[in-house]
Amino acid sequence: MSAIRAVQNSRDPALRHFGAVRALTEALTEPLSDADATVQSMADASPAKWHLAHTTWFFETFILRDHVSGYALHDERFPYLFNSYYEAEGERHVRARRGMLTRPTLAEVRQYRAHVDAALADAMPDLPQSARTLIELGCHHEQQHQELLLTDLLHLFSCNPIEPAVWPGQRKVPVRWPGEMGWIEHDGGQVEIGHAGDGFAFDCEGPRHAELLHPHAIADRTVTNREWTAFIEDGGYAEPRHWLSDGWAWVQENGISAPLYWDKRDGVWTRFGLDGRRPLDPAAPVTHISFFEADAYASWAGGRLPTEAEWEAAASGHDAADGNQLDRAGPVEPRPAETGPAFFGDVWEWTGSAYRPYPGFHPAEGAVGEYNGKFMSGQFVLKGGSCATPRGHVRASYRNFFYPHQRWQFTGVRLAKDL
Amino acid sequence: MSAIRAVQNSRDPALRHFGAVRALTEALTEPLSDADATVQSMADASPAKWHLAHTTWFFETFILRDHVSGYALHDERFPYLFNSYYEAEGERHVRARRGMLTRPTLAEVRQYRAHVDAALADAMPDLPQSARTLIELGCHHEQQHQELLLTDLLHLFSCNPIEPAVWPGQRKVPVRWPGEMGWIEHDGGQVEIGHAGDGFAFDCEGPRHAELLHPHAIADRTVTNREWTAFIEDGGYAEPRHWLSDGWAWVQENGISAPLYWDKRDGVWTRFGLDGRRPLDPAAPVTHISFFEADAYASWAGGRLPTEAEWEAAASGHDAADGNQLDRAGPVEPRPAETGPAFFGDVWEWTGSAYRPYPGFHPAEGAVGEYNGKFMSGQFVLKGGSCATPRGHVRASYRNFFYPHQRWQFTGVRLAKDL
Amino acid sequence: MSAIRAVQNSRDPALRHFGAVRALTEALTEPLSDADATVQSMADASPAKWHLAHTTWFFETFILRDHVSGYALHDERFPYLFNSYYEAEGERHVRARRGMLTRPTLAEVRQYRAHVDAALADAMPDLPQSARTLIELGCHHEQQHQELLLTDLLHLFSCNPIEPAVWPGQRKVPVRWPGEMGWIEHDGGQVEIGHAGDGFAFDCEGPRHAELLHPHAIADRTVTNREWTAFIEDGGYAEPRHWLSDGWAWVQENGISAPLYWDKRDGVWTRFGLDGRRPLDPAAPVTHISFFEADAYASWAGGRLPTEAEWEAAASGHDAADGNQLDRAGPVEPRPAETGPAFFGDVWEWTGSAYRPYPGFHPAEGAVGEYNGKFMSGQFVLKGGSCATPRGHVRASYRNFFYPHQRWQFTGVRLAKDL
Amino acid sequence: MSAIRAVQNSRDPALRHFGAVRALTEALTEPLSDADATVQSMADASPAKWHLAHTTWFFETFILRDHVSGYALHDERFPYLFNSYYEAEGERHVRARRGMLTRPTLAEVRQYRAHVDAALADAMPDLPQSARTLIELGCHHEQQHQELLLTDLLHLFSCNPIEPAVWPGQRKVPVRWPGEMGWIEHDGGQVEIGHAGDGFAFDCEGPRHAELLHPHAIADRTVTNREWTAFIEDGGYAEPRHWLSDGWAWVQENGISAPLYWDKRDGVWTRFGLDGRRPLDPAAPVTHISFFEADAYASWAGGRLPTEAEWEAAASGHDAADGNQLDRAGPVEPRPAETGPAFFGDVWEWTGSAYRPYPGFHPAEGAVGEYNGKFMSGQFVLKGGSCATPRGHVRASYRNFFYPHQRWQFTGVRLAKDL
Repeated sequence: MSAIRAVQNSRDPALRHFGAVRALTEALTEPLSDADATVQSMADASPAKWHLAHTTWFFETFILRDHVSGYALHDERFPYLFNSYYEAEGERHVRARRGMLTRPTLAEVRQYRAHVDAALADAMPDLPQSARTLIELGCHHEQQHQELLLTDLLHLFSCNPIEPAVWPGQRKVPVRWPGEMGWIEHDGGQVEIGHAGDGFAFDCEGPRHAELLHPHAIADRTVTNREWTAFIEDGGYAEPRHWLSDGWAWVQENGISAPLYWDKRDGVWTRFGLDGRRPLDPAAPVTHISFFEADAYASWAGGRLPTEAEWEAAASGHDAADGNQLDRAGPVEPRPAETGPAFFGDVWEWTGSAYRPYPGFHPAEGAVGEYNGKFMSGQFVLKGGSCATPRGHVRASYRNFFYPHQRWQFTGVRLAKDL
Repeated sequence: MSAIRAVQNSRDPALRHFGAVRALTEALTEPLSDADATVQSMADASPAKWHLAHTTWFFETFILRDHVSGYALHDERFPYLFNSYYEAEGERHVRARRGMLTRPTLAEVRQYRAHVDAALADAMPDLPQSARTLIELGCHHEQQHQELLLTDLLHLFSCNPIEPAVWPGQRKVPVRWPGEMGWIEHDGGQVEIGHAGDGFAFDCEGPRHAELLHPHAIADRTVTNREWTAFIEDGGYAEPRHWLSDGWAWVQENGISAPLYWDKRDGVWTRFGLDGRRPLDPAAPVTHISFFEADAYASWAGGRLPTEAEWEAAASGHDAADGNQLDRAGPVEPRPAETGPAFFGDVWEWTGSAYRPYPGFHPAEGAVGEYNGKFMSGQFVLKGGSCATPRGHVRASYRNFFYPHQRWQFTGVRLAKDL
Repeated sequence: MSAIRAVQNSRDPALRHFGAVRALTEALTEPLSDADATVQSMADASPAKWHLAHTTWFFETFILRDHVSGYALHDERFPYLFNSYYEAEGERHVRARRGMLTRPTLAEVRQYRAHVDAALADAMPDLPQSARTLIELGCHHEQQHQELLLTDLLHLFSCNPIEPAVWPGQRKVPVRWPGEMGWIEHDGGQVEIGHAGDGFAFDCEGPRHAELLHPHAIADRTVTNREWTAFIEDGGYAEPRHWLSDGWAWVQENGISAPLYWDKRDGVWTRFGLDGRRPLDPAAPVTHISFFEADAYASWAGGRLPTEAEWEAAASGHDAADGNQLDRAGPVEPRPAETGPAFFGDVWEWTGSAYRPYPGFHPAEGAVGEYNGKFMSGQFVLKGGSCATPRGHVRASYRNFFYPHQRWQFTGVRLAKDL
Repeated sequence: MSAIRAVQNSRDPALRHFGAVRALTEALTEPLSDADATVQSMADASPAKWHLAHTTWFFETFILRDHVSGYALHDERFPYLFNSYYEAEGERHVRARRGMLTRPTLAEVRQYRAHVDAALADAMPDLPQSARTLIELGCHHEQQHQELLLTDLLHLFSCNPIEPAVWPGQRKVPVRWPGEMGWIEHDGGQVEIGHAGDGFAFDCEGPRHAELLHPHAIADRTVTNREWTAFIEDGGYAEPRHWLSDGWAWVQENGISAPLYWDKRDGVWTRFGLDGRRPLDPAAPVTHISFFEADAYASWAGGRLPTEAEWEAAASGHDAADGNQLDRAGPVEPRPAETGPAFFGDVWEWTGSAYRPYPGFHPAEGAVGEYNGKFMSGQFVLKGGSCATPRGHVRASYRNFFYPHQRWQFTGVRLAKDL
């Protein structure tokens, strides 16, 4: 890992960024045993070791293999094991069996990382701009995997009946009640959304374009655990009238009666987190809810979910680098903003917008073009980032997306209503 | 059925409309044996007998039971059997087991229809406007089931290895080649879409509202079988690059290599229809394709699917009662328009728009409010009606919706592209 | 059907037998609508129409096609539709989709039967002995299907929430309590079991051979509903200790808490039968229980199931044509024997013997050799016939077999114990 | 582990046996990483760590907890995690999720073993005979898990595309051709089988009792890989005629075309073993075949499987401690006997006998009574032990049992035939 320590002091800001991202990934996996890093708890999740290796495979493949003459793969077998979904890159290990890979070991995967880090640091000065652009993409790609790594670990540890904590023994910061929810009104009219300009963005965030808003109001904060408990106590999970048809089927088939990781013990609601099982904070934003739950809650509360464009219009004046986001390894969790309306961090906010292409969108050429566009059916957009999103990764135009039943991410909900 | 014959001559236009709708449903089921009307070929489909009874249950429940004092149910057991998805109306027979109902027989269900028809015709003169509005809704509801009845029958008959025709021995009308596809350009800007005014519409079609279009072109006709065959021959079903990720998984899991009901026999493409299996008409619009297939074709052809608003803007000047739609019982199938751009009839056209609520949408109150709103996740909008849509049923604002893998309806595709 | 009436008066006893068997099958399906005869209620069951046609296919294939020169198939498409499991006879319609065959209609299948009956009656005088042997096999084969036909109908009608009776309005014969269960003791030693001699038997019933019995006792009657109710009330279905491991898993996964078709209504146990739903007769033999239930009951009662050899040794002095068996169409059901130990009729009795080949067993040559031998794994032997077994069909050496979870046949249990 | 080293020198032979068994288990897991010991590759298999802990739980529960006053559980949470199927011992972690237990770590489980070993060694001198009997049972129980541990590891390592070896770099012993198969004839008559006498045996091995054999011959060795290859080349896997019906369905559904772990690479058959992937030895006994495959092979070869009693009668004059069995940790695999008929070691031999109770069998009282009896449905008996069976564990009366589709054990086949 000395390669990484060296590049963090480089004069090349791209290399420093690369080093910082790579170092954070390793810090996040520091508490893990070889077994913790290997097991896959469900098909949606991946082992930590796989995240470590796959993000490395990205740099090795698209930069070292494609742009550094004479580069020899660290291990010829790794592309098959650690490609994820790039059909253009050939055959790959089936997703649901990623947890079978007890070898290479965690230590060997760390060596793979060190090897690629060193090779990339060496190659950096001579790389063409096209490769540097791919490094930037690779860093953002790795940041996405940092968040998945945390949420996948949380899920894995929750599957163990003894409920170990990834980071045990953390002191609990008291959470203050954020005050009553207020409304931010908007008269409607054309707004511009989507990405434009020099900064990095994924292809699906553009082109920047006009959208027509209708008069509406959007809440100045997300829904809290206390408010969610009222929904439960009012029979929210037992009343089909609040639910989308698919959502109600999901509730029935899976026996859903509370957010993921909640459990009532001796009459007290608890939640499982990266610091183990603890009592629920009523004042904290509710998290680990599906789109179906978010939509049912909004229906029960007499509102609706904001659209992606409404959310982005409201958030655009705020600093995306503010709020409760991931700065260092540790048991992150949502907590209420201290002052003023907050749109970034804490929880990803479900919108009512299906994840579909913007007008004029075209996927990038080549394998990296499989990054976003091909997922544009069946999923909903989430905005704003979460406590597990690396600070600096998210933007107002950022489009996260998940299926409506998924809830192992730090997902939450902000209300909107028509005016 | 004399009740129906009588009301078709009524001086009350609502009663005449009721009579005409009810009579067409019966005509559509005229060729069926008791067994044909009873079997359910897949969970998505319903038996013909069930369509006959369920549409009758709608009138019995929401008009006779709720608005006619002293009305006694024809059979106390039928609401349990023939309610479909109205949770507010209580327990109901599980959808996937509708095919177990060998009793009541087809003859008994026809008696049920006659009983309700007569009671409704008797009650009509004294009904309040609220009930008359529900009758209108019931007629449109029954028209939807007429289309489902035809497509469900087609699916059932296709499951029989001897491939019987619902209407055998039909003379085949030759189909002329519609000519090269042309483009209708649009400069973008605000348009109004959705329903407003006096005519009937479903709740999900409104409110009428402005949408912002971006510069684009939309094809002047739908894709033909000949064009689709070129897609197949170019390896369209074998090339993941054209497909959405969910679509590619669907292709792989189900071994999809052509539209539903297509089969190559002795080197010749054939299709199964309500008139049995026949050679494919190259000039006819392709049908029985999923959203995934429509989207992959568009990607392969260098275009995209139109949005709902683009489609509605283009179609709004056309007569929704024109084109190849359902007028009488018989083996309907798509055929190319004879002159000019046609937007209505032949095939439902997949749009790229997820089926989500319009700004300001609120479901109707009561059980009928479960009609549309609760299906607003995971499905895509289709526009324009098909050869199986009863003429008079469809409008430019009409929003049909299905899941992206479904293709047993008469579904097709029209291309669009950005300008 | 006049062909059948004619042959029932033939001077050829084989032809008279053929006629009687064929006529009973038709009588059993007399109350059925076209739909009743078409629907398949589960993969284990077949539609009545399929039973009617498949038994006919057997005669058409193995006698008319193979032994009557110039015979033309009634319909070239039927072998594909109505072959069951004879791999040697080529491709066939998949079992679980037999319920899709709304065509040919019930009337057409009856015509098929009449055609084959007439052709076979014509051909009979000139047939070689090998063909006459196959006719006898065909008659016994059809008798097996008569029983399946009744039990499949019972299952189908039970799936309809309105619970129609196949034969409604039957007068209920009162059932007398059979008295306390007694034990028939056996000192052990060698016995001969299995079929030998001139009468018909299936290949799996032989060769006749010696078996060594150990000292034991076998009950003089089967377990009654009253006794079974005591098992239920003692928590029999809730106590894993009584159950085989696979049985307990089956209970848990399927929520089993009583025999099939039992339901407690207003505090009273009822059962569904061919005459509809009625109160349970406490004195009648329990039926519609799986091997798992039979074994758990025996364990709870301090006994065990008899082995096949023990059962056959005990039954061999009794007349297999006695007891409550199928004589004519109607709502058969088990009832207690009036006097003395009864081994035949009422319910098939689960034995503790796996269905495996007898020493020296070899399957018959050709397609009919697939009749029994290939099912010799995973199933258990049942003995004695039931109320739905055509009288004259069963023998002491008869080996029926089902999987341990199956219970839609008229299955019951007789206890045994070691001495 | 010093506790174990000490007890291996004890003057108490029971304690020495305990020590030797416990030490071998640990030696078998010596090459494993924490991840290797944690992952579960299928529901039938368990993680190595689980085997290590479960066998320890057995001693802790049935000896220390029940017989040592004042003993405190090493960890109160372990009984829930490491109970396997003893319903009487209460709730337990679901079998299919054993692979989720990344904690306790492998090191912690080894501490658990050391703790229990030390406590048991201390307690030994004062234990009553009933407890000593349970220790003996526990040792035999652990020996069974040693074999499962090896076969579960083999399966896990086979799921990794890079095919690591548990024990790499082993020198390959050349295998000599065992010569043509000969037949051992038996005239039939009564024989005694089953366990009686002082040595240890599982409850299901008794009571010893007479069985009647019919004249037959049994092969003097098991089938080899070369012979199996001839079966494959003759189309054995493609011809339904050889197969039981359930077996043919299993072949079709799973695409079976060779024994488990076989793969043809560059035209050469290879097998995967504990020493990695290597070319197949034609002379070695075929292994990793299911009962279905064994039965189909026998049918193809014109023979049948021996019954359990035939096998035991033939084997009873042979020394069960001879042959290729497990003596120490390493990449065991079957190899042909050097001289004379061999019945023990190399491969477990499928018999044609369903696993059912012997006459007079009663399960032991208490939780340990769940050990064997409750598995007596749906499984077949295997005899003789394998290369992975700890030497000293198997007897002629030993009854191993698996479902007919299972083949991840070292299973093989010996032919028999009727005379």
